[in-house]
Amino acid sequence: MIATIISTGDELLLGDIIDTNAAFLCRCLARENIMVTGIRSVKDNITDITQALLDVSQHADICLVTGGLGPTRDDLTALACANACNTELILHDNAMDSIVRHLAEKKYELAPEHKKQAMLPQGADVLENRWGSAPGFYIHIGRCLYFFFPGVPAEMKPMFETLAMPVIQNLPQFPHQKFAIKRYTIFGLGESRAGARLQEFSSLFPDLGLGFRLMFPCIEIKIINTTSGDIPKAAMDFVEKQLGDKIVSTQGLSLEGQVGQLLRQKGQTIAVAESCTGGLISTWLTDVPGSSAYFLLGGITYSNQAKESILHVAPATLERVGAVHKDTVLEMATGIRNAAKADWGISTTGIAGPDGGSAEKPVGTVCIGIAGPDEFAMAKQYQFNFDDRSKNKAMFAATALNLIRRKLIA
Amino acid sequence: MIATIISTGDELLLGDIIDTNAAFLCRCLARENIMVTGIRSVKDNITDITQALLDVSQHADICLVTGGLGPTRDDLTALACANACNTELILHDNAMDSIVRHLAEKKYELAPEHKKQAMLPQGADVLENRWGSAPGFYIHIGRCLYFFFPGVPAEMKPMFETLAMPVIQNLPQFPHQKFAIKRYTIFGLGESRAGARLQEFSSLFPDLGLGFRLMFPCIEIKIINTTSGDIPKAAMDFVEKQLGDKIVSTQGLSLEGQVGQLLRQKGQTIAVAESCTGGLISTWLTDVPGSSAYFLLGGITYSNQAKESILHVAPATLERVGAVHKDTVLEMATGIRNAAKADWGISTTGIAGPDGGSAEKPVGTVCIGIAGPDEFAMAKQYQFNFDDRSKNKAMFAATALNLIRRKLIA
Repeated sequence: MIATIISTGDELLLGDIIDTNAAFLCRCLARENIMVTGIRSVKDNITDITQALLDVSQHADICLVTGGLGPTRDDLTALACANACNTELILHDNAMDSIVRHLAEKKYELAPEHKKQAMLPQGADVLENRWGSAPGFYIHIGRCLYFFFPGVPAEMKPMFETLAMPVIQNLPQFPHQKFAIKRYTIFGLGESRAGARLQEFSSLFPDLGLGFRLMFPCIEIKIINTTSGDIPKAAMDFVEKQLGDKIVSTQGLSLEGQVGQLLRQKGQTIAVAESCTGGLISTWLTDVPGSSAYFLLGGITYSNQAKESILHVAPATLERVGAVHKDTVLEMATGIRNAAKADWGISTTGIAGPDGGSAEKPVGTVCIGIAGPDEFAMAKQYQFNFDDRSKNKAMFAATALNLIRRKLIA
Repeated sequence: MIATIISTGDELLLGDIIDTNAAFLCRCLARENIMVTGIRSVKDNITDITQALLDVSQHADICLVTGGLGPTRDDLTALACANACNTELILHDNAMDSIVRHLAEKKYELAPEHKKQAMLPQGADVLENRWGSAPGFYIHIGRCLYFFFPGVPAEMKPMFETLAMPVIQNLPQFPHQKFAIKRYTIFGLGESRAGARLQEFSSLFPDLGLGFRLMFPCIEIKIINTTSGDIPKAAMDFVEKQLGDKIVSTQGLSLEGQVGQLLRQKGQTIAVAESCTGGLISTWLTDVPGSSAYFLLGGITYSNQAKESILHVAPATLERVGAVHKDTVLEMATGIRNAAKADWGISTTGIAGPDGGSAEKPVGTVCIGIAGPDEFAMAKQYQFNFDDRSKNKAMFAATALNLIRRKLIA
């Protein structure tokens, strides 16, 4: 099955957004043994979209198109499709029903421009949108079956998975051999160092594929078998031996998901005191559904005053060593653990940048503390040098979660 | 100047990596008033790459190509270029010099496969790579000037900026007119309702463009003028009048950036007590560089025990009305404000889902409290019904930030 993707939107071509939709669709199709042959991004321009649709129809079996189904005037994809099909836009009653149902659920009123979203090419089949207002549709142009989705990822993704995929699976060209994929979440090794450790993989297991995906600051490594539904044990053993304790999860769990699972298994609770990570550790931990079972308290104690009053860090400590120091972070970890009456306390203090660094403590310095049962307490200092506040925060937060993870499995 | 991008690499088409290179190049060109007309991602396949190069040469002035210059056998871009130019690969001495110099710096040895990286199409000019081993190059195919870069972002980016951009700026087609973009951040209006309010824009200002971008739960609206470096005041006045107090920022600031700017201007400080938002408000606020000037303390008080001990919410209040109530959230706001000795305290408590809802307080219920100077205190209850824990958290957090923003400008 030859599959292609067209992403529409000026914001893609201005670099305002990164095309995560195309990568998502590629991953979904790859799971079904379909490797996309090409992706095109085109402007919100009727000529460009029409031309791209016509070009692709020459050689592809399916084409997934995202963007340009909204209510505004720069949403031109349905019209471009009608042009390419040599047909007209007509009001589709079931598209209108989808819109009315969505608006009723949200208690919004029907506005005239919503009607535009129900004007779809004659002959199209509607893909209901239960996640937003713009319905999608699918239609043949020549021999190629086109699927059109809104560009909003939260709408496109479930529409693709629940509505379009079943149609694709019923096409005669759909491959019926299954891939097997085994996923590992890795922290503490970059893509190239992980790749070097696994260099012999392809000569040892010539029938298997190996995929790398950066999910900063973690990476996901997957073993792919396109010829049968199983991953040979020898291949998993090789990967697990080479990557050793850099493996966070052999089940594809995120770092915070893995920490949550370990806490739940042990029946233990956690509290977090964050300075430089600004709430990111708490946000990640509480993104896991059911986290209220083990997450008791988070404190984002930016100011020294907050470190003293909430965490009971001794003013003398702050005076002696300052906010960014192992002694301070240790008192923070103990302080939040006590304040929450939790089993574990973890804490961060450091300099995320771009300002606030010094020769002695440059941007990227972070101290991480852990306090636990039986008066366990430890603190470590690290130095990371990403040139980016958000990356620094993410690396600090992941390093802290990885430390508590290792402590929980020790 | 018509500019296009070709990204090569199987990992793009498997969805294993997201094409951040293309977005980077688009942003760089947009800053120079060049809007890229199309991006294509193609497989590591000699036929596909050659065909893409030939297609683009029909209509573009420049084309930026990334990937496929490495030492391995699936690195085929130089050969594809030679095919498209109808020429051969020859050893380029200055490419070899670039490789030798880089290896010497890294104290690596020259391996036979490095020589492959110096085999470039006859007639190409070399782009030295001081950041990695694979040199780039540029060459005409037909009327279009092609620039080839390695796919590693840390090598491609500086090569583009320091070596390729000066060549592009010297081309006769380089635009000397600037285009102007004015950005507005909007909260509290969906894309379709904002579009409806601006429906007359294109008839009033036919020479200007209007762009919409969803950045849930905000939207960004931009006025684009591609014909001069200014946005006419009448157009801004129209947009500002139509969108009124839904405009969060007229400078393209995020909601949290705008709140931060207002606090900074007033010399005031803030503290945040979060239950259902799990640290998201604090994370957003502290993502803003320099936020330590006004952000004092965040508390993620999931448990009632934490609400009582950290925020001094009265046990009687929790017993009388429960955790999700305006009375409780008000005590939380006052409590965090007092604990931090901040000017402002904001607080959230609610049910993000998927579990924890009841008939009386369904999933999506949120109470938001604000405590401020001069004993100011207010609490509001809202009901949102996104079917998604993350969306609910984001909408709760943005609603709270928008409340404090409006209070700060009142």
